[in-house]
Amino acid sequence: MVTKNQIKLITSLQQKKYRQAHQLFFAEGVKGIQELLQSNFELEHLYATEMLFNEVDPAKKTIISESDLKKISALATANNCLAVFKIPKEKPITENGLIVALDDIRDPGNLGTIMRLCDWFGISQLVCSEQTVDIYNPKVVQATMGSIARVNVNYVDLETFIQKTTLPVFGTFMDGKNIYAEVLPKEGIIVMGNEGNGISQSIEKLIKNRLTIPRFGDLQQTESLNVATATAIILSEFRRGN
Amino acid sequence: MVTKNQIKLITSLQQKKYRQAHQLFFAEGVKGIQELLQSNFELEHLYATEMLFNEVDPAKKTIISESDLKKISALATANNCLAVFKIPKEKPITENGLIVALDDIRDPGNLGTIMRLCDWFGISQLVCSEQTVDIYNPKVVQATMGSIARVNVNYVDLETFIQKTTLPVFGTFMDGKNIYAEVLPKEGIIVMGNEGNGISQSIEKLIKNRLTIPRFGDLQQTESLNVATATAIILSEFRRGN
Repeated sequence: MVTKNQIKLITSLQQKKYRQAHQLFFAEGVKGIQELLQSNFELEHLYATEMLFNEVDPAKKTIISESDLKKISALATANNCLAVFKIPKEKPITENGLIVALDDIRDPGNLGTIMRLCDWFGISQLVCSEQTVDIYNPKVVQATMGSIARVNVNYVDLETFIQKTTLPVFGTFMDGKNIYAEVLPKEGIIVMGNEGNGISQSIEKLIKNRLTIPRFGDLQQTESLNVATATAIILSEFRRGN
Repeated sequence: MVTKNQIKLITSLQQKKYRQAHQLFFAEGVKGIQELLQSNFELEHLYATEMLFNEVDPAKKTIISESDLKKISALATANNCLAVFKIPKEKPITENGLIVALDDIRDPGNLGTIMRLCDWFGISQLVCSEQTVDIYNPKVVQATMGSIARVNVNYVDLETFIQKTTLPVFGTFMDGKNIYAEVLPKEGIIVMGNEGNGISQSIEKLIKNRLTIPRFGDLQQTESLNVATATAIILSEFRRGN
């Protein structure tokens, strides 16, 4: 059974201001919750429609009905479990190896997919501008498929961060150098821009290494790649030779 | 002004059976509609909240209120225009160059993103299994960002198609050869599998060229890449050397 106050609290966590006020977020589905439990995330409470996660302290677990789960779920079709976790303290940025930096990514699905790509390509540090969508947004948590447990994310003033870094900084632009012909380093910051506007002018000024993903075919009308698919191609290029 | 019958017809086109019965589909937003108008798609009727598309025959254009547009739109936030087009006759498959074949892709966003990738990488032929989501689904049309006008799509019995082709057939599997170390041809069929289950067993038996996208990093826990990002990496690899 879920109380009215619990429903109110959990549904409020769909909004960033309440996540920040309570320092809590939630994940849905066995796989995502499993990955968070196995890592350093501290469980606040688990709600499930059946006996799941025997390892969890019974005091932190409630079996609820499907209709109650539906009331607290953020999904169109609720899963069989939802877990509320504490938002961990932000760890300092690990400034070595490859780092992905996001300049105002707004779509939760894109952020989640980019985190999954970082995880696949062994990139453990993601740096986001303050305007980038919150990683504890339920849609982002869902789209990361557990990668949220393995990729360190920091929200920063991106302009200041890039001004201060000693690593080479890369970005993709229409007039950049063919990424397939460049020798790419093992260390550096790869900046990915906003869905509609690309990399902002203030950040663009700070990027010394301008790359481009060439287009193929006769028509050449495709305006742009989606930011998540562009990230996939760029990370693959940075890793394939190293 | 939109009549009740028009609203009924247009909203019915969100379902495949009505699209097939009427041989009509719709697109929303200036950019997507523009690209369809410029190509071979035949306009049935355009609805807009302001004066747009001066080139369109006034008999095929109706200025409507925002609240009426909301009634016919499939989007959470309606755009400023919606156009109903005739579904064109399926063209025969062009069996040369690179072809992408989809084995039961169910998510409209994934299909739209894959079409956009085909367009970017100059792949003009997409072959879909009969269970793959319909390209005239409004969410697919939206996600293609106009690429629907430039990529030829056929729905076929994929098993029969692959049995009969003379082109080499490629697929990605956990135990495949490292895609970064292979010399990839300019011609061939690249099979991408279903979001949850990957490539089906009956199709897998027909694939002679098994590839894999290597994972990086120590943890190696990431289960899989999203099918659209995997397609991005594979198409980039096929094109980069050619």
